[in-house]
Amino acid sequence: MPGTVLYDGGDAGRQFSAELKSETLKGLVNIISALVDEVKFNITPEGMTLKAVDAAHVAMIEMKVDKGAFESYYADDCELGLDLDKIKSVLKLASGVEFIRMEQNANLGKLIFKVGNITRSMTILDTSSMSDPKVPDLHLKAVAGVSVDELKRGISAADSISDHITLRLNPERFELSCEGDTDSVSLALDKGKLADLSAEEEVCSMYPLDYFSNIIKAVPNGTVINIELDSNYPMKIWFDMADNHVSVNYLLAPRVESD
Amino acid sequence: MPGTVLYDGGDAGRQFSAELKSETLKGLVNIISALVDEVKFNITPEGMTLKAVDAAHVAMIEMKVDKGAFESYYADDCELGLDLDKIKSVLKLASGVEFIRMEQNANLGKLIFKVGNITRSMTILDTSSMSDPKVPDLHLKAVAGVSVDELKRGISAADSISDHITLRLNPERFELSCEGDTDSVSLALDKGKLADLSAEEEVCSMYPLDYFSNIIKAVPNGTVINIELDSNYPMKIWFDMADNHVSVNYLLAPRVESD
Amino acid sequence: MPGTVLYDGGDAGRQFSAELKSETLKGLVNIISALVDEVKFNITPEGMTLKAVDAAHVAMIEMKVDKGAFESYYADDCELGLDLDKIKSVLKLASGVEFIRMEQNANLGKLIFKVGNITRSMTILDTSSMSDPKVPDLHLKAVAGVSVDELKRGISAADSISDHITLRLNPERFELSCEGDTDSVSLALDKGKLADLSAEEEVCSMYPLDYFSNIIKAVPNGTVINIELDSNYPMKIWFDMADNHVSVNYLLAPRVESD
Repeated sequence: MPGTVLYDGGDAGRQFSAELKSETLKGLVNIISALVDEVKFNITPEGMTLKAVDAAHVAMIEMKVDKGAFESYYADDCELGLDLDKIKSVLKLASGVEFIRMEQNANLGKLIFKVGNITRSMTILDTSSMSDPKVPDLHLKAVAGVSVDELKRGISAADSISDHITLRLNPERFELSCEGDTDSVSLALDKGKLADLSAEEEVCSMYPLDYFSNIIKAVPNGTVINIELDSNYPMKIWFDMADNHVSVNYLLAPRVESD
Repeated sequence: MPGTVLYDGGDAGRQFSAELKSETLKGLVNIISALVDEVKFNITPEGMTLKAVDAAHVAMIEMKVDKGAFESYYADDCELGLDLDKIKSVLKLASGVEFIRMEQNANLGKLIFKVGNITRSMTILDTSSMSDPKVPDLHLKAVAGVSVDELKRGISAADSISDHITLRLNPERFELSCEGDTDSVSLALDKGKLADLSAEEEVCSMYPLDYFSNIIKAVPNGTVINIELDSNYPMKIWFDMADNHVSVNYLLAPRVESD
Repeated sequence: MPGTVLYDGGDAGRQFSAELKSETLKGLVNIISALVDEVKFNITPEGMTLKAVDAAHVAMIEMKVDKGAFESYYADDCELGLDLDKIKSVLKLASGVEFIRMEQNANLGKLIFKVGNITRSMTILDTSSMSDPKVPDLHLKAVAGVSVDELKRGISAADSISDHITLRLNPERFELSCEGDTDSVSLALDKGKLADLSAEEEVCSMYPLDYFSNIIKAVPNGTVINIELDSNYPMKIWFDMADNHVSVNYLLAPRVESD
């Protein structure tokens, strides 16, 4: 009885197909893989969203990809679990300006990528055990708009000094600093060098350098990152990518000095 | 008694001197070293030929280098055994457009390379134990002319999936495919994307990816490779390089699925 | 009592501040770190000098940096002990055309580097145990002005042959040669290819390749190096950098063939 399905395995019959520039997909994957190896996308006719927390529950990411980020996009409501290393291997096949086409074959539980004359089929991960973390609604006291290029330089300078950094905001400036046993480093950006600064008093927290470094290095050069801070609180980072069709929220727990 | 030689040590007195572009020599060495580390060239006044088989007897190469590939060429009939790693170290000294001069000093059993102001002398290998493999005369059912750039991409896509690939030719298309436990990949080139296609029926064989990858990656981008196939037979690859002054035949045994 | 200092900790109160192009500092650090990891600069109002010998006492370097090498320079007489790896980490923050500012905070025993919006503070090393080696006053028989680009190529060619090289000067040419068990290589530069040649008779010495390679590879391409030689004597190398504001002398002990 062709066409008859007794059990459709959940998402069978639901459809997802989309096409986007290789460099757009690469930008998304870089950001997400700063935190996790596997990801569950929640897909709707209007776009994709994801929420993920790292294994140690230190950082959390929330990403929204508007369908405008795609060249073409057609989707029913569904979930899509993907292995990011496999998508990276697909991205290596494409030059930045090339298009990558994705098509879900829900009956087979596969996602099909097409790049040029290559067809790459990968198993869709079972998402039943991948729950969406609840993203806390933080109200932090200060915020600054900082060039990611400056932050990358500050991270690079901090790298040989210590494994944690202090971020500080006051009405005059943003500062990233790092203290070692004998040496220290700081990146100081006065109000005039910031895209935006809102702080009524000085706030300051310490964070693990490796987490901060992973996310910042994944952000494309030229991006302005909004950093929200409070004293001894998680930081909240948010920024847009891909002509504002992609928005990212990122939370990172502070390192509390107990000793 | 000048000019008198009591014992000429085999090739003594026979001469070989030639000059060629660094990039031409590099192209030859890349191809040969995809298969073997040491090689015996059979040299005549008209050019050089070599036949080589890899240690596992899985693949075989036959190369003919017309004297037109050289800027200057003078040779008596002789054999020349060379260590390819040593030639690669000479190639590292030269930019692509520079000329490399080779001169045999048969009395000393040396080959002398000259690059710029550098003179590099290397021992000629004893060729007495290096026999020419007999290249079988295969008559295969189908052949296609395929862009090596496409093949490189297909190999790259297959790399993370499996350690063997299937090549398929039918009257409509050429296909390279690779099946893993959960994922798969294929490169499909329809007739219109091939330089040439001749197949009366579908033929298909499986080959070890590493061997195929080594030879394909050694071929300069932009080259069209002729692939001859039959079902469960060795493949035969042939292509020209260096303005058709170099021709290469390559045979690769199939992987027969016994289990 | 502001301004009153009971104990000034040696150099406290003495000042050093200077600014120079990143690429100039990089050039200096590359040369010095070919020999040592830590260095003591002797600083005067007119510039900086250093003398250093490697741990095995095989090679010695003397460098003079005129204050003209700096964009701005202000210094009292003092000594400054620095860890070269730390300066390299600062250099990684700067592009070649960017300026790096150095300021001594003698009270804290720190040297402060400023690059863009980054401030990097590093501990000044205790120089009390870093004595200046006495540089011998050698009078060698022959000298040639040799392109460092040619020397780099000769070193590269020698690399796979042996771990020592022979330098030779006679009234006709400069020669770098290297003999292995089966292979050999030489770089021969006739008088016309040398910037300068003065040799009344042939002189020749053998040197360790690794030391010679380290210093030569650290010299910027396009530099002419003066090589002074005598038979079985140390070699003396001297050259200028940074528009002649930096002069370098380098001595390397010969490898004497005892067996």
